[in-house]
This record gives sequence, structure tokens and C-alpha cells, in this order.
Amino acid sequence: MAVYTDFSDEELQQFIRGYDLGAVQSLKGIAEGVENSNYLLATEAGQFILTLYEKRVDPDDLPFFLGLMDHLAARGINCPTPVHDRQGQALGRLANRPAAIVTFLAGIWVRRPRVQHCAAVGRALAGMHRAADGFALTRRNALSVDGWRPLYEACGGRADEVQAGLGNEIESELAFLEANWPDDLPAGVIHADLFPDNVFFLGDELSGLIDFYFACNDMLAYDAAVCLNAWCFESDGSLNVTKARALLSGYAAVRPFTDAEIRALPMLARGAALRFLLTRLYDWLSVPDGALVVPKDPAEFYRKLRFHRSVTDAGAYGLDL
Amino acid sequence: MAVYTDFSDEELQQFIRGYDLGAVQSLKGIAEGVENSNYLLATEAGQFILTLYEKRVDPDDLPFFLGLMDHLAARGINCPTPVHDRQGQALGRLANRPAAIVTFLAGIWVRRPRVQHCAAVGRALAGMHRAADGFALTRRNALSVDGWRPLYEACGGRADEVQAGLGNEIESELAFLEANWPDDLPAGVIHADLFPDNVFFLGDELSGLIDFYFACNDMLAYDAAVCLNAWCFESDGSLNVTKARALLSGYAAVRPFTDAEIRALPMLARGAALRFLLTRLYDWLSVPDGALVVPKDPAEFYRKLRFHRSVTDAGAYGLDL
Repeated sequence: MAVYTDFSDEELQQFIRGYDLGAVQSLKGIAEGVENSNYLLATEAGQFILTLYEKRVDPDDLPFFLGLMDHLAARGINCPTPVHDRQGQALGRLANRPAAIVTFLAGIWVRRPRVQHCAAVGRALAGMHRAADGFALTRRNALSVDGWRPLYEACGGRADEVQAGLGNEIESELAFLEANWPDDLPAGVIHADLFPDNVFFLGDELSGLIDFYFACNDMLAYDAAVCLNAWCFESDGSLNVTKARALLSGYAAVRPFTDAEIRALPMLARGAALRFLLTRLYDWLSVPDGALVVPKDPAEFYRKLRFHRSVTDAGAYGLDL
Repeated sequence: MAVYTDFSDEELQQFIRGYDLGAVQSLKGIAEGVENSNYLLATEAGQFILTLYEKRVDPDDLPFFLGLMDHLAARGINCPTPVHDRQGQALGRLANRPAAIVTFLAGIWVRRPRVQHCAAVGRALAGMHRAADGFALTRRNALSVDGWRPLYEACGGRADEVQAGLGNEIESELAFLEANWPDDLPAGVIHADLFPDNVFFLGDELSGLIDFYFACNDMLAYDAAVCLNAWCFESDGSLNVTKARALLSGYAAVRPFTDAEIRALPMLARGAALRFLLTRLYDWLSVPDGALVVPKDPAEFYRKLRFHRSVTDAGAYGLDL
């Protein structure tokens, strides 16, 4: 659930005067982005998103995130582009928090993705991977294999509160993935969270990618495995292989997979499912009783994990081997 | 806290096709409005607010609210104006809820109102009262004197959980107001909730009034008394008499108070303070332990109520008698 930091008119006016954007015409808190406070800001210069970075974001990571958006936008990727202030800075300060203004992106996110949306996402993901090549900064993926066990331990052995036997399953999966996780696949900057709410469409045309606040350096094919989990399962928990094929072939049309990546895909998909299972489990167990905010269901990714465990090769995802 | 009902792309497209607004370009849930789900909607025709009416709003009241906005806008008041669909209807249906699209209003609400804002609000409130004259529909004020005791009883005798002795104070105030509440003052359509977050400014110019979902028929001066409570107290609980004078003289410059209204003002201000004390008390006691949403502090309006009880005549609000 988004946080809404409030600030005075004077603070806002003073902040905006630092930019070449004219006078403020409208400011509305928007219900997007879990980690930060986001506002739709209209000024004489147009529409923008104003983001205040709340405590879940490490300020030291902000130059990576903002620099990446600058880098991608300069290479033709449709993504929010940081607006630089009169001193040339993308990162400012408002209400005692790091703050940035980025360009507004038209489009709406698709609640029920269809095959053509999956194909478009695959192409866009590969395009982003290619465009990110040459970006100078790096950021470790804190939510990759090394981070999963600490995250599980932070759940304090309470996994079975969600589903009986879940704790044992997670422990055996952790042991397996720690022993078998690949480390020699092509790597680069990945989005790491390209779920449907982070992809905008105008009609059936993909109009942009947003929310780069999990972006990091990791194996590129892992990012495709995240998308496979995020876009290609039906609400009954089954994989839609037509969507999976569309997503992966869309990706491969822009950046062909190596043979090693194709072989690793079932393992990467297991890891991606476990990563979202663990963060959702942690959030689920952390929400106080009676809270009005309902966290997302961890069991959804447990079902996906079990599916990937049954997979022997990437043919199950519709990839021609 | 705003609710966010989700709906599919197909549902949204079908709904929008009923209007002459072109294709959807953006849709974002916004964090404004406590009772309903509000979205900022951009289409080829411009920017709008899409509202889904959730269960706290009685659907039978919607023709009054939407008709009032139509009526006021036609008389030059800057307020959201309902967009009528191809059949001429302002009220539609989306995601199995009543839904409406209204025009977008530029401006931001003032977090720390100054004297000139109070003067502008007084003038705008009186302008609204005059413009509402002749509106054909009526709606009873369910939150006037008849509604306060049932609301207090719904709190189940738990007022002292907020502050020791509060229950007795409310009971004696209820008895006093029930015995002395005026019923012969000039009446008409009132906004009934014109707090700072419902008034937009562009710079120091008032650019519009929003959120007519408490509007009803009642004494006009009671609306001014609500504004007195909402705009003219400092954060330490003291009345800023300069702001009060600015608000009331601003009002009177557009619609002069009658002598009876001026005499009744301290009583109306007590009633207005009790009304918000009671709804806040009810919300405070209804929120589950540990919820992430913090309700507004009822004690703020208890302090205001006590101030008004000490007032002998409207001179205390800066009005020349």
C-alpha cells in the first residue's frame, strides 16, 4: 500500500521553483507504487510524476535507479525520464525525503493480459536489456539466491501458518536452488519486477515500462523467468503455454537466448517463483491482525513453484528446442 | 482511506465507449475522497475524474449530488461537472457499482490556509449558496441535530476511551443543542464538508470546490459555521480571529448574514464542532487494532467545541455586531 507523505504548500512551491517547470497546477497522490509516495503533478510545463522515496528504499541506490531511467530513455526506451533541476540534478529533497520528478507516461496497465500483450512484453524486456548495455553503474540483486534464505529466516518459521507443510517445501527448495543456481549466464541490468502493473499499453500497443526500483545486475534470462511467472499463468494456477511461447519468442526475436539460457530456464523460473513466494510470505506474516490492507497471497507463487518443479525442459514453456 | 475497486480492461473500455470521450490514455487511482474509489482518467478528450460509488454512499442520493454539480456549474461555479453519456445520463455503472465521470479541476488544496485563503473560501461558499438557489432536488441532512444522538449511541458508550469525561460532556452538549438548535434561519443547499482538502487554489486564487457528497438542505449559516471550524483554528487549538473575520466577512460580502444568523452563529459553531467530533469518534472506535490507517483525532473537535461554548456572541469570531 502506498504511503502518502504530506507537505506544506510552501515546501512544494520551493521545491518546484528549483526546476524549469513553471507554476504548479495540480497535485494528486496516486495509488501506484508500494514502496514510495507518488503524486501526479501538473505544472505549466505538462504532467509529471513526483516521487518521495520512503524508508524502504536505500538512498544510496537512487543514483542507480534514476541514472538507469536516463540511460534507457536516451536509448529510445519508453520509460519515465528524470527531470533535472536547474543545477542539473535528478535527485532532490522534499519533506525531508529524497525526491524526484519524472516524465508522465501515457497508457494503462492490463488487468487481464492476453497473448499479444505477452508477446509485446517479451519484446520490450529484451529491448530494455539491450538498451541497458553500457550503463556505467551497478547494483547487486539483494533478492537473488543469496538473499532468499535470510528472507525465509526472517519469517521466523511461520510459513505453515499460510499452508501446512510449506516450511519444509521452502527449505528443500532453498537447498536445491543454492546447490544448482547458475552463475555463468549472460548478465546485465534487469528490471526484476516486470509485472503487469509496471507495463503500460495504449490499446494493444505497449506504450512504456515503469517502476525501475528493483532494477539490478543479474542474469538476463532470470528477468524473462520473472515475466513468465508474472504474465503467463491463469487464475486457476495453470500455465498458459501459448502466452509463455509468445513472451519467450517475443524476447528471443529481439535478443536470442543462448543454449545455456534455454537449458537453465526451468531452474530460473523456480528461483523467480520462490523469490516472490518469499517476499509475499514475509509481507503476509508482517501485516498486523485486522489491518485494512490485505497483502497478496503467497500461495499463488507456491503453486507456480510446484509447476516449474515438474518441468524438465524449456519445451514446457513453448520454446522450440 | 480511499477504496480501490479494480475492473478489467474490457469493462473499462465498454464503459468509456458509452461516452463521447475517445480512447482511454491513462487511468490512475488517486488518494482523494474517503467514501469512493476515484481515478484520474485521461482520454483523447482531456482529463477527467472517474468515481465509483462504494457502499457508504446511498445510490438514491446520487441524482441529487450529480444534479447539484450540473446546476452549480451551469451557474458559473467552478466545480466538477458530470460528463453525460451518449444517452444523456450522468450516472452509469462500472464494476457492478454506480459510476460517474466528472470534469477535472486544476488547483491544489492548501495544507496551511492563510488569511487570504479564508476570505476566498467565505466568498466562494456564499457564491455556492446563491448559485444553488432554485435547484429542484432536496436531500435531508442526516448529520444534523436529529442524527447526532443516534451517532453517539452507535459509539456504544466508549467515548471515554478517547478522553476521560468525554462521554458526559457529549451527553450534556447533545441535550443542550437538541433543546436550543435553531430551525428558522434561511435555508438552502449547503456543502456541509468544505474543509481545506475540498477547495482548490491556483496560487492565491481559489480555483474550485469539490466533493459534494455530503451536500444537503440545511441552514446556510451552518455551512459557514462548518468552515469556521475547518479553516480558522490553529494547530494549538486556538481560534485565529483574523482568519475567522476574513472568512465571515468574505461570506457576508457576497451574501449578507441576517441578524438572526449572526445571533445563532456561536450555537451553529458548537453544533458543527459536535458533528465532526461525533463522526471522528465513531470512526476512531471502529478502526481495528493494528490497522495501518490512522483515523483523524476526535479530540481536535472537542477542543473546538469547548472554545465555542465559551463564546457569548459572534463578535468572538471577528464579526462586527
